[in-house]
Amino acid sequence: TELPRPYPNEIPHNEKLLSLKYESLDYDNSENQLFLEEERRINHAAFRTVEIKRWVICAMIGILTGLVACFIDIVVENLAGLKYRVVKDNIDKFTEKGGLSFSLLLWATLNAGVVMVGSVIVAFIEPVAAGSGIPQIKCYLNGVKIPHVVRLKTLVIKVCGVILSVVGGLAVGKEGPMIHSGAVIAAGISQGRSTSLKRDFKIFEYFRRDTEKRDFVSAGAAAGVSAAFGAPVGGVLFSLEEGASFWNQFLTWRIFFASMISTFTLNSVLSVYHGNAWDLSSPGLINFGRFDSEVCHRFFCWGSGILGALFNALNYWLTMFRIRYIHRPCLQVIEAMLVAAVTAAVGFVMIYCSRDCQPIQGSSVAYPLQLFCADGEYNSMATAFFNTPEKSVVNLFHDPPGSYNPMTLGMFTLMYFFLACWTYGLTVSAGVFIPSLLIGAAWGRLFGISLSYLTKGSIWADPGKYALMGAAAQLGGIVRMTLSLTVIMMEATGNVTYGFPIMLVLMTAKIVGDYFVEGLYDMHIQLQSVPFLHWEAPVTSHSLTAREVMSTPVTCLRRIERVGTVVDILSDTSSNHNGFPVVESNPNTTQVGLGLSAYPMLLLKDFRDAYPRFPPIQSIHVSQDERECMIDLSEFMNPSPYTVPQEASLPRVFKLFRALGLRHLVVVNNHNEVVGMVTRKDLARYRLGKEGLEELSLAQT
Amino acid sequence: TELPRPYPNEIPHNEKLLSLKYESLDYDNSENQLFLEEERRINHAAFRTVEIKRWVICAMIGILTGLVACFIDIVVENLAGLKYRVVKDNIDKFTEKGGLSFSLLLWATLNAGVVMVGSVIVAFIEPVAAGSGIPQIKCYLNGVKIPHVVRLKTLVIKVCGVILSVVGGLAVGKEGPMIHSGAVIAAGISQGRSTSLKRDFKIFEYFRRDTEKRDFVSAGAAAGVSAAFGAPVGGVLFSLEEGASFWNQFLTWRIFFASMISTFTLNSVLSVYHGNAWDLSSPGLINFGRFDSEVCHRFFCWGSGILGALFNALNYWLTMFRIRYIHRPCLQVIEAMLVAAVTAAVGFVMIYCSRDCQPIQGSSVAYPLQLFCADGEYNSMATAFFNTPEKSVVNLFHDPPGSYNPMTLGMFTLMYFFLACWTYGLTVSAGVFIPSLLIGAAWGRLFGISLSYLTKGSIWADPGKYALMGAAAQLGGIVRMTLSLTVIMMEATGNVTYGFPIMLVLMTAKIVGDYFVEGLYDMHIQLQSVPFLHWEAPVTSHSLTAREVMSTPVTCLRRIERVGTVVDILSDTSSNHNGFPVVESNPNTTQVGLGLSAYPMLLLKDFRDAYPRFPPIQSIHVSQDERECMIDLSEFMNPSPYTVPQEASLPRVFKLFRALGLRHLVVVNNHNEVVGMVTRKDLARYRLGKEGLEELSLAQT
Repeated sequence: TELPRPYPNEIPHNEKLLSLKYESLDYDNSENQLFLEEERRINHAAFRTVEIKRWVICAMIGILTGLVACFIDIVVENLAGLKYRVVKDNIDKFTEKGGLSFSLLLWATLNAGVVMVGSVIVAFIEPVAAGSGIPQIKCYLNGVKIPHVVRLKTLVIKVCGVILSVVGGLAVGKEGPMIHSGAVIAAGISQGRSTSLKRDFKIFEYFRRDTEKRDFVSAGAAAGVSAAFGAPVGGVLFSLEEGASFWNQFLTWRIFFASMISTFTLNSVLSVYHGNAWDLSSPGLINFGRFDSEVCHRFFCWGSGILGALFNALNYWLTMFRIRYIHRPCLQVIEAMLVAAVTAAVGFVMIYCSRDCQPIQGSSVAYPLQLFCADGEYNSMATAFFNTPEKSVVNLFHDPPGSYNPMTLGMFTLMYFFLACWTYGLTVSAGVFIPSLLIGAAWGRLFGISLSYLTKGSIWADPGKYALMGAAAQLGGIVRMTLSLTVIMMEATGNVTYGFPIMLVLMTAKIVGDYFVEGLYDMHIQLQSVPFLHWEAPVTSHSLTAREVMSTPVTCLRRIERVGTVVDILSDTSSNHNGFPVVESNPNTTQVGLGLSAYPMLLLKDFRDAYPRFPPIQSIHVSQDERECMIDLSEFMNPSPYTVPQEASLPRVFKLFRALGLRHLVVVNNHNEVVGMVTRKDLARYRLGKEGLEELSLAQT
Repeated sequence: TELPRPYPNEIPHNEKLLSLKYESLDYDNSENQLFLEEERRINHAAFRTVEIKRWVICAMIGILTGLVACFIDIVVENLAGLKYRVVKDNIDKFTEKGGLSFSLLLWATLNAGVVMVGSVIVAFIEPVAAGSGIPQIKCYLNGVKIPHVVRLKTLVIKVCGVILSVVGGLAVGKEGPMIHSGAVIAAGISQGRSTSLKRDFKIFEYFRRDTEKRDFVSAGAAAGVSAAFGAPVGGVLFSLEEGASFWNQFLTWRIFFASMISTFTLNSVLSVYHGNAWDLSSPGLINFGRFDSEVCHRFFCWGSGILGALFNALNYWLTMFRIRYIHRPCLQVIEAMLVAAVTAAVGFVMIYCSRDCQPIQGSSVAYPLQLFCADGEYNSMATAFFNTPEKSVVNLFHDPPGSYNPMTLGMFTLMYFFLACWTYGLTVSAGVFIPSLLIGAAWGRLFGISLSYLTKGSIWADPGKYALMGAAAQLGGIVRMTLSLTVIMMEATGNVTYGFPIMLVLMTAKIVGDYFVEGLYDMHIQLQSVPFLHWEAPVTSHSLTAREVMSTPVTCLRRIERVGTVVDILSDTSSNHNGFPVVESNPNTTQVGLGLSAYPMLLLKDFRDAYPRFPPIQSIHVSQDERECMIDLSEFMNPSPYTVPQEASLPRVFKLFRALGLRHLVVVNNHNEVVGMVTRKDLARYRLGKEGLEELSLAQT
């Protein structure tokens, strides 16, 4: 059969409710005729209003993200303080009169109880709030839509969940979830409405399209990073690394603006809360404190890369196990409780067995446990376990040399490594940054001490510096975000001079780690078979052409089409693409003059009001008479879609997709006839494996 | 006449030597068939080698840029020290016995002499080395090629020139030229040869194409920023702001790597030179020193925006005057000498008239001039004038409150403002960053002192903080690079907390300044009528379509073409584009079987060896017989060029151009027939003026 003579166009596809989990963002819906006509009408003044609104939204995103971070910080601090005081009093009581097993029981029960609540709300109310949310945000910014990921309900569950996880004493941090929280805040504010609350404030309607929403979500993610680590520039780079396709200067400025405001809000509020309003010393949820000189050893970086890879490999098997066996919410809650109880038990046993006593004088321990130490001394192992992980990290960085016994550190590293590995992937809302930093800091400090021992003091440096490098290396080995992570660490240490060694450490950790296994986030994304587009096409894919990659045959529509045909095409779930080229009617075919349907016109407003949840075609009843009517698709199509000749190489197609943020690309032959369609899935399928180019199997989009 | 039936393709255009100054980079030459075939053959291992080479080159760029910065710093420090000691001794001698006019004469002569040498080498040997080089690098990264801009000779003249300008006491800085220097170093290393030295090291031949070279040049520019201000992240953002079209993660990592190495090299070498090897306290050519708290006043930002705009407006008229009247090199040298002498004279008179004496005890003045002060005191005006501008800036930031008299500061600001304005645009190699910072720091400090006076001390803060904000604001008002400048200033102050006020100050300065006149660099670029592409199409251009923007008619070639036709087309200087679509021969036309010419095949190597100076067509002799031969253009064309339908809107075309770094875009009709060609010039023509869309007249490309 002859191919329809083209004029390829796309209509905004109806988002079919597929049985599968992932949908792709339709970047192109903002390029249909209705939107274009509005843009054509827009004048300079109206444009300026839109631009000002964008800045206002970014400021609001920054402020709200900062406030949410403050809320989490303050609540965690108070609740965790309460818990540790209760347990400490109990331990102190039972240390003298014996029966410390009651203390263990109390501690484990408290932990398990708190974690149970945190796990129940995640597992039963909003499962997408599990974990740090970073893989989900990476996917969203990449252009893959995950249902519910930017809903208000998710934010509430996320915030409560992370508070409960941290208070429950799990080996988790509250930093990762801030990125997700910032993204949700951004999505909510920019759309001026909330689906969860069923409220529409009728503002910011101009931004109800995928491209705009996505830009704001990147600003939100950046604001989240900024609030978490006091790293506004790191936040911008994180967003760019994960989300940017086409670098837009104004967008980047706005992202930076949101980040700055976020860290500034957090800083101001926390300074006021802590009673020294003009001090401004808490730019982030975790503050590393000041460092002054530097040190780095190559051996070190190698080690951390391997440890990071080991962490990821263990977590990979664990995740596979979980996907296979622990998929019922009840089981997930029970596992979370188990981990919480085990964490408490391990901590208790380690503290109990430790004989490492340190003088309490001059140390800055928050909850010093005396246990079996002499009066005026405290149990050093307890400072590491009996504390929120953030505090432990900072202690490892800044405690004076000699505060920790190598044995203590070694045992702690080992135990915490397995606990953190087991914890990541539980159905609780929690981040992996802080546990990674803590493991790294512990073994970095251990390394520093050992080096000094082994060389009999001839190579000696402040073990806190080693702890910092170890923390950077371990985190890099686990998450592998080189550039943004370097900048985040640089900003968190507040010292540019550290940038160079941190960069070297992170690069080495990445290279070594990549040799064994992927980064933690990428691994989790790939386990879900998401059609995730990387930065560049695989290097050896130059010999593949669009013809080989494209989906074919393509279902095309005509400009004036029978309603029944449109309905049938949209209802056909077996179709391999959701955007349909509109082709020019063949001039030889006589148009049967059925006349256009007299339906009320769809307006731009209708699209905006329905966005992003367009009604599925199944919910629209079309009568047999209506099916015979003709519909003019001109209004709903993109009048000048991007096309590519069928000889174009895969890297070229890939670049076009990435640079322009496409979702569909029409492949044409020399006569401009539609021969195929390249979708995100077609491109995401190819990746470079050990043996050369591999084809993955992906979830349907 | 019927349009040729298409299959639009481009051949690498022959770079015609136009009479005009600017050429555009041909991004696309790396996409012709020869290059594509090489890429298709490349395997994984070969790709890895190329990738490693890229990193090695970036490391070399970083090291060399750092070393050049060290060289400039050390030479300037020694020569300027020598000069100031000579003049100081002379002044000290004549203060007692009268006849200070001799000192003035000595000072003015020394300055004028040194500047004369600096100006002569620029004016007569390499005029493109004049100024800071930032507008030139902005153009280069934007895709406009300026002859000689990345030659080794330019680097040598630039480095010598900047040393002589600074030593000659002009109101200039050595920071801006570092960016240009880094870019030249990058271009040289990445090509593995130097045209100026006529040496080809036969390495890195893979990188002899525009896209690759341009990527390395952005790394070089970033390394330059990094060395100048100790701001590696700021450097990366500068490069991205100015150059990036498509954000590439690996490229950004490499740019960051080069930046980091550059500042680290500078830091290490300078630390060793200053005798405290492990101190690492000089990450940049200018180091602001540590700041601890913060302050900002809105009034302040407004003022600086207006002052910045005034600076630019004055400089605009001055530049127009210079373009019209001072175009002969001799005149340029004389003007430079005049400015040098006047700078010395103004400084001398100001010092002479000043009665502002400060106790020498506890101050850190390098060359304290006693003049008419009591013993143990020094002339405070002299610290500002009798010093390199970098030192003066840091003094204004950090000198304790009360070091400067408001009158001194006021006079200094006023005088320096005009001097700096007169100086920028002279035919010497020099930067505008430091003078801007100095003006801002002076009036910022003045503002701080006045505020304290006026409110009788109730609003009081360290005037050094005001000086910092004033410096940021003034610089922002003059150059208007918001994001990268904020990060540069943040890194230079070494305190994240300052980020927020600096950002507010810079944004206000930009908004206010933009209301009056463009940024200094943009102004200079526009005065040269360069076809510079901004980030986005003008907002009100949605109603323009490709059809209205494109150049037409288009000269097309056939796949098998008569040599004579090709030669004629290439020689035709009246053609409005330099890339020619290759169209499919109309199947109805019978191919006259003249046979293909038996010329030796052109190989990829030939392109690389000639790059970037391909021989002009006029230099190639083609005999009458040869003209009748046929040539197959398949090898030299891009087999799948980007095209756009004629209905596409200008913003859409613009986005495609920017995101993909195009130089030519073929416009086709619905039948895929070539109807026009959009070039960079066609797009750069449109800009948003006060009255709506305007068309500019541009230099021919």
